[in-house]
Amino acid sequence: MKFVTFQKNDGDLRAGILVNNQIFDLHECSHGKLPLSLLRYIEDYQSYEQMLLDVLSAGEKTTGISLAEAQLVSPLPKPQSVRDFYAFLEHVKQARARRGLEVIPEWFRAPVFYFTNHLAVKGPGDVILFPENSKEWDYELEVACIIGKQGRNISREQAMEFVFGFCIMNDWSARDLQREEMKVGLGPAKGKDFATTLGPWIVTKNELSEQIAGDVLRASMTAKVNGKLLSSGNAGDMYFSFGELIEQASKDVTLYPGEVIGSGTVGSGCLLELGTEVHRWLETGDVVELEIEGLGVLRNSVG
Amino acid sequence: MKFVTFQKNDGDLRAGILVNNQIFDLHECSHGKLPLSLLRYIEDYQSYEQMLLDVLSAGEKTTGISLAEAQLVSPLPKPQSVRDFYAFLEHVKQARARRGLEVIPEWFRAPVFYFTNHLAVKGPGDVILFPENSKEWDYELEVACIIGKQGRNISREQAMEFVFGFCIMNDWSARDLQREEMKVGLGPAKGKDFATTLGPWIVTKNELSEQIAGDVLRASMTAKVNGKLLSSGNAGDMYFSFGELIEQASKDVTLYPGEVIGSGTVGSGCLLELGTEVHRWLETGDVVELEIEGLGVLRNSVG
Repeated sequence: MKFVTFQKNDGDLRAGILVNNQIFDLHECSHGKLPLSLLRYIEDYQSYEQMLLDVLSAGEKTTGISLAEAQLVSPLPKPQSVRDFYAFLEHVKQARARRGLEVIPEWFRAPVFYFTNHLAVKGPGDVILFPENSKEWDYELEVACIIGKQGRNISREQAMEFVFGFCIMNDWSARDLQREEMKVGLGPAKGKDFATTLGPWIVTKNELSEQIAGDVLRASMTAKVNGKLLSSGNAGDMYFSFGELIEQASKDVTLYPGEVIGSGTVGSGCLLELGTEVHRWLETGDVVELEIEGLGVLRNSVG
Repeated sequence: MKFVTFQKNDGDLRAGILVNNQIFDLHECSHGKLPLSLLRYIEDYQSYEQMLLDVLSAGEKTTGISLAEAQLVSPLPKPQSVRDFYAFLEHVKQARARRGLEVIPEWFRAPVFYFTNHLAVKGPGDVILFPENSKEWDYELEVACIIGKQGRNISREQAMEFVFGFCIMNDWSARDLQREEMKVGLGPAKGKDFATTLGPWIVTKNELSEQIAGDVLRASMTAKVNGKLLSSGNAGDMYFSFGELIEQASKDVTLYPGEVIGSGTVGSGCLLELGTEVHRWLETGDVVELEIEGLGVLRNSVG
């Protein structure tokens, strides 16, 4: 199943399910039994799922909205949190090489992450505004998983039980700001706190079952800027699997439904890695399209 | 005014106001007109405040609960976010000196911060559990301000208009985990994601007006472990004022009511700085008491 959040004509946000290029409002098509927001649905999806299946199979759903006409926003406009990991070795190697650094032994020992600003999440179609005092504007091609069940000290082997689904993530980065602030040691903040895009929809792990082997998602990933293919990789190349990321995130910490776990950038998945000899930094008017097999295309323009 | 969140006998959490050592349930004493949660109150405090003053002055409030008997939890059990800055020069100097490092020029240019786990916030009285794979258990004596009004690109001069109030913050730290992961460059994560205490209550900026000069809060700060005074400083010694922290946090980013801005550790305000020659790392059974002038005492034991 594919879940979206869309904006109605009156401005209200509603959770929807995407079936055959039509979006059905969860709340309306269930005569008010399913919740208004996708976060509420995810928080109790194991009890709602059968109800949704019954509604869909009864065929008595209200008229859908065509996908082309719907105004999609982030499937989770306000996720509970966003952790972003750093799990692709190729990205870490190349991004550090650009700064004249090698991959340190600590990187291999355990997956590391930082929390980004979950209150600045954007969705498909949103125009991304970079900080005014930045010139080095970049995208980051990532895949994210959405936690669907509360848990603590979750083992790698159990981890997929706690996953609701996956979506594309673009961790927009102002490289000049990031480079300066990271010297202080607290990680990225103003370099990344202005925008993170999620979308265009969340695909349930069941729908992706053919692409999932154990705790690894196999999915080709590409990024294009103004139609030009720049980044290409596969989620299956993560050095640390999603199972290991969830194990690490949940060690001595409770995870809740609606928390987002980003993979980190896939190898070649940002301009920092490619270098300005391949492509200049982003500029106003550029269109960035991230595509991940099974997860759709996440398109944003730069404002 | 001093605001708390407390647990009722039936387990429900309620917002309360503390008057003369008595706690009055906001919702009950207003006959349902004021909200159940302190976050909801803060989100609209400018319209609720007069209602609360009327209820208090009418004297028709329901019977209070004595502070000694009330079970206080974090005033914001689930704040919208927690940013933690690094704004005291003495702490930065001494903590870096412990690692053989000097303060770098970038530190002076702009205040830096990281987001910590706002879903792992604890309150007064909570027993703090450190990660099992850590041995170097530490506290951090900090003061936090709570955003009370939505804003973006807030100037230092306007910043106090956007503040609801202040409280004490203990940014518990597992130093061995933190040291390892920070080498990778994304800042602290597992070293600090297990617990941050806020409390015992939030004191409004109006109540603190005699301690506030411009955008600077003047308040003596101390930390004791098992009754022994270990840390002593003053919030007025912040190198970057709260106005500057809010200016930085809100640059190109919208701040929302219920977001928490931590000052960073006051000079001498953690065991890392003091060194094991002054005090060993924390152990199970230790009681840590943070006291800040005007803000009360925040007491936790280590489990």
